[in-house]
Amino acid sequence: MRHEDLTLHTDKYQINMMYAHWKNGTQNKKCVCEAFYRKNPFGNGYAVFAGLERIVYYLQNLRFTEEDINYLKEQEEQYEEGFLQELREFRFTGSLASVQEGSIVFPREPLLRIEARIFEAHLIETALLNFMNYQTLIATKAARIKQVAPEDYFMEFGSRRAQEADAAIWGARAAYIAGFEATSNLLAGKYFGIPTKGTHAHSWVQSFETEEESFRKFAEALPDQSTLLVDTYDTMKSGIPNAIKIGLELKEKGKTLKGIRLDSGDLAYLSIQARRMLDEAGLTDTVIVGSNDLDEEVISELKSQGATITSWGVGTQLITAADQPALGGVYKLVARESNGEYVPTIKVSGNVEKVTNPGFKTVYRIVNEDTGKAEADYIAMVDEALPEKDIYLFDPVETYKSKTIHNYRAEELLKPVFNEGELVYDLPQVDEIKSHFRSQIKMFWPQHMRKLNPQTYHVDLSEKAWTTKMELLKEATK
Amino acid sequence: MRHEDLTLHTDKYQINMMYAHWKNGTQNKKCVCEAFYRKNPFGNGYAVFAGLERIVYYLQNLRFTEEDINYLKEQEEQYEEGFLQELREFRFTGSLASVQEGSIVFPREPLLRIEARIFEAHLIETALLNFMNYQTLIATKAARIKQVAPEDYFMEFGSRRAQEADAAIWGARAAYIAGFEATSNLLAGKYFGIPTKGTHAHSWVQSFETEEESFRKFAEALPDQSTLLVDTYDTMKSGIPNAIKIGLELKEKGKTLKGIRLDSGDLAYLSIQARRMLDEAGLTDTVIVGSNDLDEEVISELKSQGATITSWGVGTQLITAADQPALGGVYKLVARESNGEYVPTIKVSGNVEKVTNPGFKTVYRIVNEDTGKAEADYIAMVDEALPEKDIYLFDPVETYKSKTIHNYRAEELLKPVFNEGELVYDLPQVDEIKSHFRSQIKMFWPQHMRKLNPQTYHVDLSEKAWTTKMELLKEATK
Repeated sequence: MRHEDLTLHTDKYQINMMYAHWKNGTQNKKCVCEAFYRKNPFGNGYAVFAGLERIVYYLQNLRFTEEDINYLKEQEEQYEEGFLQELREFRFTGSLASVQEGSIVFPREPLLRIEARIFEAHLIETALLNFMNYQTLIATKAARIKQVAPEDYFMEFGSRRAQEADAAIWGARAAYIAGFEATSNLLAGKYFGIPTKGTHAHSWVQSFETEEESFRKFAEALPDQSTLLVDTYDTMKSGIPNAIKIGLELKEKGKTLKGIRLDSGDLAYLSIQARRMLDEAGLTDTVIVGSNDLDEEVISELKSQGATITSWGVGTQLITAADQPALGGVYKLVARESNGEYVPTIKVSGNVEKVTNPGFKTVYRIVNEDTGKAEADYIAMVDEALPEKDIYLFDPVETYKSKTIHNYRAEELLKPVFNEGELVYDLPQVDEIKSHFRSQIKMFWPQHMRKLNPQTYHVDLSEKAWTTKMELLKEATK
Repeated sequence: MRHEDLTLHTDKYQINMMYAHWKNGTQNKKCVCEAFYRKNPFGNGYAVFAGLERIVYYLQNLRFTEEDINYLKEQEEQYEEGFLQELREFRFTGSLASVQEGSIVFPREPLLRIEARIFEAHLIETALLNFMNYQTLIATKAARIKQVAPEDYFMEFGSRRAQEADAAIWGARAAYIAGFEATSNLLAGKYFGIPTKGTHAHSWVQSFETEEESFRKFAEALPDQSTLLVDTYDTMKSGIPNAIKIGLELKEKGKTLKGIRLDSGDLAYLSIQARRMLDEAGLTDTVIVGSNDLDEEVISELKSQGATITSWGVGTQLITAADQPALGGVYKLVARESNGEYVPTIKVSGNVEKVTNPGFKTVYRIVNEDTGKAEADYIAMVDEALPEKDIYLFDPVETYKSKTIHNYRAEELLKPVFNEGELVYDLPQVDEIKSHFRSQIKMFWPQHMRKLNPQTYHVDLSEKAWTTKMELLKEATK
């Protein structure tokens, strides 16, 4: 992995607020901040949390270089030398608790919780959100796409359309976590150990006199990688027949034509015809790969029309999350130190869902032991003991909606990652994260997981968390 | 600027095709490839080209490290040692011609033209498209946004919602090129010399006992940077009155409250009220900054309702190009070397606009000397002389649509950047690119530039380019 110098990858107002706290002598006061999102993307019922590995590297490598300091000094003459000296000595000395990557998560629950000097809590907001927002978005999109054809093979092919290099690389990782099997991006493969796949381009075919010759040469060079792209000139009249010819030649040598790729036209019709032609030629092991601006809607439609594609190359729509290209996660101050104690803080809004949940909190997944299924997530104060037997759950807005779970267990979702600046978490390999995602999915009732009009999964507040919020809200608006 | 190791930021199929050419002995054959896009984004009439600086650094730094080679060897047992040795010696030795950054460009004209060994032309496709697609997309979006309020001040505030770090940084640059005046991202500021701006967050206010105290402390620390965010609790009842109080205190000290920022609620109503209240208090120099999920449509609506905001912080919608998050640029082989000559190549498609334009070509902007306005862009073969006097232009699809420009000059849009591996182009500073953009805009009739339903600007083929295409098309489909 590359460890880039991203300390200045932050908004200027963070440094201004750090400076203003320093001037005011309040820079070492501690505070608690939470990162969360407000609404599931794509009309989905959940999101798949990702981005923690990137965040860990970022926090470990936070250092202002002398070049950074000089830049800031030039930018803002008001910054005093004492402040710049504090920046030179800056290290992340706070605590971070985080949901595990690959976990199923829901709106308004804390995904990252930072307890740190206010000086540090400001600096890191921008990058933490930037990383969490993007990877969580792409993992969620990947999970939706995989869901429409759970038995098929999915490859991430979006690098050329990604929003710059980091998006291609970290997006490939996020897709792999939540349902994809491979990426075309070699750098992502190298960094994360993700399998890499690829076929060939139209330009391969165009660089030969004939399509047939180009197919033969490709199969000769890479007999075990021979997936042939059949739509450079005419899929039905030339591409598929030429691919079959090469497939039969490979067969004579004891090899198998691995696949053909359809990249334009009516993929349902063409794949049905191609399957028939391949089968009639005896090439029953040759798979059909589909690509061309695919997403979960298109793939679902194609499957319902009988498309025989079993391997999908998904690009633009996945890697940019084209139907909603931002998760919109936010980072809010929920408690501040005052006389050695944490005081809960609130941000008020005309929109009830935008009012923050105050206080130093954590979040539990309430699992019904009788069914093994998750019933709701439950946000409580960190110092609050959960009831031993029955747990009473109520909607924090429509409070008359309530239920009691009798035989429950509570799994705390936030795990310690940094403890006063020290990394206390073993970053899992990407394949462990992938397994975690698979096991998470099984904990939920299908009605919360479905692609269209999912049933809302509840994220509730403990009575204490709810009361704290109501009191602060009353005070702030009186 | 950071020079990252991005050599493996490519699709696996590029390396597979390089290998297959190497096995076939054709890796040193030369070819010509063009990068272009097919359709203007956002219903716009044009795009703003950007991404070249990133491409230049990328091409200069292309090297396979021993770590890269080992990774490839593990990935693909079929790769032979002789091939890996060629990768070790790999340098970009080709030629690149490119449109200048900040230029107004149109669909289907070459923006990048690569003449290189086929071995090299394959490797670089993915990264070139990745860089060109994203920066061109964001520059185009920025130009649209600026257009609705040309006299106002625009700041890029999207880092936390960008699709990872590179998008935040290069997106800030693209926005600056095409109409924005500043970014909040300090790393972009440091890398490119873009002005950086910022106010403060809700968390600043929340970290004090009262809003009034928080405003006072901020203004004390940064008296020349004091833009106060007024919507943490209640904009009208508390935020604006408290800001005015601090504004008057600053005034007594001979300072000016720089601005207030509105970040929620009805920005039209609130800004009109805020302007009135500020003016009545004598704070006529205090500007009103607006933010909160803005784009060209929202800003245009707000302006038409009399909003008094003159400084705009634009985030998510700009930095992700939310209404169309991918430009969709492609890279196509247009000519291949055969017996020491270039033979034009074509890619056929059922969709007439997807058929490529074959041959080693360039593109001119045809300017009417009588008006100084651009009349059309004109794609011709590189070895083709333009007519001395009158130039005849016709639509390459609807060929009966034609016109003749009498008193014209032709400006070649593609400039040499690399010549056989050597950089022959002085990369301009970002402010020169910004000026180039401003002067470009003036060359076009307003009907091509307007936001809604712009008139199509024509990109025509020379007779020779058109005939070449028709002949190849006939041959390929016979």
